Amino acid sequence: MIGSTHITSAFDRDLEAIQALIMKMGGMVEEAIGNAITALAEGDADLARETRRGDKAIDALELRVNEEAARLIALRQPIATDLRTVLTVFRISAALERIGDYAKNIAKRSEIIQELHPVDGGTASLKRMSKSVQVMLKDVLDAYIQRDADLALDVRARDEEVDQMYNALFREYLTHMMEDPRNITACMHLHFLAKNIERMGDLVTGIAEQVIYLVTGELPDEDRVKADTTSTLGGGTAG
Amino acid sequence: MIGSTHITSAFDRDLEAIQALIMKMGGMVEEAIGNAITALAEGDADLARETRRGDKAIDALELRVNEEAARLIALRQPIATDLRTVLTVFRISAALERIGDYAKNIAKRSEIIQELHPVDGGTASLKRMSKSVQVMLKDVLDAYIQRDADLALDVRARDEEVDQMYNALFREYLTHMMEDPRNITACMHLHFLAKNIERMGDLVTGIAEQVIYLVTGELPDEDRVKADTTSTLGGGTAG
Repeated sequence: MIGSTHITSAFDRDLEAIQALIMKMGGMVEEAIGNAITALAEGDADLARETRRGDKAIDALELRVNEEAARLIALRQPIATDLRTVLTVFRISAALERIGDYAKNIAKRSEIIQELHPVDGGTASLKRMSKSVQVMLKDVLDAYIQRDADLALDVRARDEEVDQMYNALFREYLTHMMEDPRNITACMHLHFLAKNIERMGDLVTGIAEQVIYLVTGELPDEDRVKADTTSTLGGGTAG
Repeated sequence: MIGSTHITSAFDRDLEAIQALIMKMGGMVEEAIGNAITALAEGDADLARETRRGDKAIDALELRVNEEAARLIALRQPIATDLRTVLTVFRISAALERIGDYAKNIAKRSEIIQELHPVDGGTASLKRMSKSVQVMLKDVLDAYIQRDADLALDVRARDEEVDQMYNALFREYLTHMMEDPRNITACMHLHFLAKNIERMGDLVTGIAEQVIYLVTGELPDEDRVKADTTSTLGGGTAG
């Protein structure tokens, strides 16, 4: 009995160390999103460059998390629930890394958008949308650490709002393009940013689903009502 | 010595079984790409639906590959090179799963493109581009099984052609949109398909880099000359 308790604690202690790395990674990604959007909204080329460079540290942290998780599996040989808990680490770190990539892409694209014909109200809605995703990310990491399935379900539900903001933006850009062909190039870029943010929301939702799986042992029904209707209507976009 | 040989073979045998699953997964993804593009080019709604549904089997196989890999780590406790070899499995299966997702998205979008104002030569170039990615995928899986770094380097180099095809297509769609606003909606959709295919090429390149890493112990220089110039020039797109 003492032996078994000892093994459990060693596993838990190692897992906690890995989870601390994930929280650190999540904090860096959250900051990258904020910086990328600020760089875009304020035309801050230095901040854009810094955000692009910062992505390497996020990538390095993902590698480290994966190696620690593999070491934990090799050392403690977890089975059943414990094994699944460690496998979740790979999925969450991969999602964070991809969100970081999107932030890097936004920073990169912000540098050229400055050079183009400006579009009315182009960045204000993007800022609002990315703020929602940032808060979702913060909450999903809290849900992960606290094994809070209700909070994770709430985050997942909020992705619908992000999808709706994206749909509204898509139609707005389409209108700008049809009204004035000089808007076409800038709107194509802005629309890509909107799509990147929408995808970040999807990735956060994926993390929320992993948390729900961890706590309840079941993935939520995958056929969630998707509010991104643009890929099933003629008036839309996506991919 | 006999003991050590025994342990090595057991690891290798398990690894081979996992690699066989990866090859199976790769074959399914390759087929999904082909079917998605055929569904688009021929307006085949049944094939599009079938391709969308088929993505579930790819996702299930990824889960199985990851669980087998985790079991292998727990059972054989590989270290150093062997551990890295198993970790590569997670990365390659994740890349294949994402390529499968893009194929699903293309199939989904093909269903609406049929309803829109047709664009001259819209799908022929997409077909050529996706064919290149399919061949790259086939080759990178061969390179993986045969631990052939030269072939992997060759696949990686070919991604530049895919990027160039994407750049050409982007400019083509931009021209169509500026010439006739009725083309805007269809071109937005077609452009998304082009971007999805370009991303598939990036993911195949990522697999090629993992193979190079497996064989040489080093990741190739990440600052490969990128031929997708659209995100650094005013005339482009991406994300």
